[in-house]
Amino acid sequence: VICVLAGGVGAARFLRGLQQAVPPQTVTAIVNTADDMRLHGLTICPDLDTCTYTLAEAIDPDRGWGLAGESWQVLHALERYGEVRPTGSSAGATWFGLGDRDLATHLYRTQRLAEGAPLSAVTVEIARAWGVGIRLVPMSDDPVATKLTITDAGRTSEVDFQEYFVARRHDVPVSAVHFAGAATARPAPGVLDALATAQLVVIAPSNPIVSIGPILAVPGIADAVAARRDHTVAISPIVAGAALKGPADRMLAELGHERSVTGIARIYAPLAATLVIDRADEPLAPAVAAAGMEPIVTDTVMATLERAAALARNVLGTIAARQ
Amino acid sequence: VICVLAGGVGAARFLRGLQQAVPPQTVTAIVNTADDMRLHGLTICPDLDTCTYTLAEAIDPDRGWGLAGESWQVLHALERYGEVRPTGSSAGATWFGLGDRDLATHLYRTQRLAEGAPLSAVTVEIARAWGVGIRLVPMSDDPVATKLTITDAGRTSEVDFQEYFVARRHDVPVSAVHFAGAATARPAPGVLDALATAQLVVIAPSNPIVSIGPILAVPGIADAVAARRDHTVAISPIVAGAALKGPADRMLAELGHERSVTGIARIYAPLAATLVIDRADEPLAPAVAAAGMEPIVTDTVMATLERAAALARNVLGTIAARQ
Repeated sequence: VICVLAGGVGAARFLRGLQQAVPPQTVTAIVNTADDMRLHGLTICPDLDTCTYTLAEAIDPDRGWGLAGESWQVLHALERYGEVRPTGSSAGATWFGLGDRDLATHLYRTQRLAEGAPLSAVTVEIARAWGVGIRLVPMSDDPVATKLTITDAGRTSEVDFQEYFVARRHDVPVSAVHFAGAATARPAPGVLDALATAQLVVIAPSNPIVSIGPILAVPGIADAVAARRDHTVAISPIVAGAALKGPADRMLAELGHERSVTGIARIYAPLAATLVIDRADEPLAPAVAAAGMEPIVTDTVMATLERAAALARNVLGTIAARQ
Repeated sequence: VICVLAGGVGAARFLRGLQQAVPPQTVTAIVNTADDMRLHGLTICPDLDTCTYTLAEAIDPDRGWGLAGESWQVLHALERYGEVRPTGSSAGATWFGLGDRDLATHLYRTQRLAEGAPLSAVTVEIARAWGVGIRLVPMSDDPVATKLTITDAGRTSEVDFQEYFVARRHDVPVSAVHFAGAATARPAPGVLDALATAQLVVIAPSNPIVSIGPILAVPGIADAVAARRDHTVAISPIVAGAALKGPADRMLAELGHERSVTGIARIYAPLAATLVIDRADEPLAPAVAAAGMEPIVTDTVMATLERAAALARNVLGTIAARQ
């Protein structure tokens, strides 16, 4: 069994490669849910959906989120209401790109949650509807919400993740991050078991602060990963000092970390023995080792499915070689 | 000021005629909300939406509900989830026809209600978004739900209105109707004022049991109408013993009423002095009078906007003549 801590796009691409390399049913992905939001009365789980749609080969390959061949009738129709909503209301908001077919997922999930089903059970149902073989598990059935302290036009305020990420296009400096609800959240059923029994734990190439960070903030999960340190491999989301997608690089620097594989190594060293870094970062391999992680140098940019599968095989081989 | 008690399609067509005959801002429609439902986590108000869309000239003229030129991407996408939902769940249900553009209305309403806005305020916003001049007021901001006792294949059970009306195509006998929540519901702000001050109160040609009945079941409303009995005109939804649309005729018979304008007169006599009946029912005018209502005979079938406007002018003239 292989257990993967997963955020959004980077994690989803890695999982897609992994399901080429091993039987999907042997993989459990523990997925960040602190990006989840309620909008239009619906519960939206961007990272879970990105994983599901990617593994179902249904993701829009250009955007990296949402469904390929999507239509946008509902979103266009919402514009009419944006004009009449009172100040302070977020009803009729159109900044969050909800495609018509994607909406069906949120409608299904919201109804099931309203019926009392836990998110982990609903996630299994949605994955089954899409024929996904990898087991997707939300990090917790309890709500956890990433809150970012940002400074915009000289004013400091705390915003939800999607407001930072989508509405403000992660284009404002972040001075603090916390995970509301994390302290009392419990790992979803199966999470601790999967971590305890996996032959290999992988920290996917996701944002360490706001994608992997919330998973580790759920009490018990970081300890469970640390207990498997020798069997845990992290894949750096930073290549040559930059994030391939999203604001991980800038956010690392803003929060006092080094925006490099060395910075990543310092964050993950207590949890994982091994860090997979890109060939572009080979000169930093000694610094990674000095930070306490064994560096593995390979191609990490998953531009194609073949590259993603090769990365997955490399990660699997690393551990196999050591055992 | 003219105040109209309104259900769905028949009421909406009458209101559309009325706004041809008088300045729309002089009309208040008190609309049934006991057909409202929660589905996919959304609050759906079929009668309010039918009135709004009809008055905005946006209704689908053939179906009589939903928007003209509608697309159905979301509904099609939900089919995938209907196959994985557990027994007993209504998630992923596709029996209720939710168009893509219609969905935007439910998303807006649901978000506003979640923000704490009362339904009456949200209804004003939605009407404004559609440029509707007539003032639409839900009968109550409190939830009221029509429950029907039906017998299907020999089994008796209680179902919600939309399950009876849409999922079972109102094709099962009804042995009882009640309005859950009505006893403690309060009339929405403006309802009692509008009834008390209107020069004319109209009971629209809607189902007297399940469209007008719930409005009258909200404590205070029936008394307020009865207090204006001399200024109240009902329009029969029954023409020549049949309902033009929906199950009103059969339901009247099943619940022990006469399925005719006479039966309608017996129901409305305590509330309204006048009953408008179709020319087809002219022979029953003496029976209507005997039941205690003054019969007015005219064309009541609103096949066109012109017919609806003519009916509205006739109703207005009736009262004008008496004053």
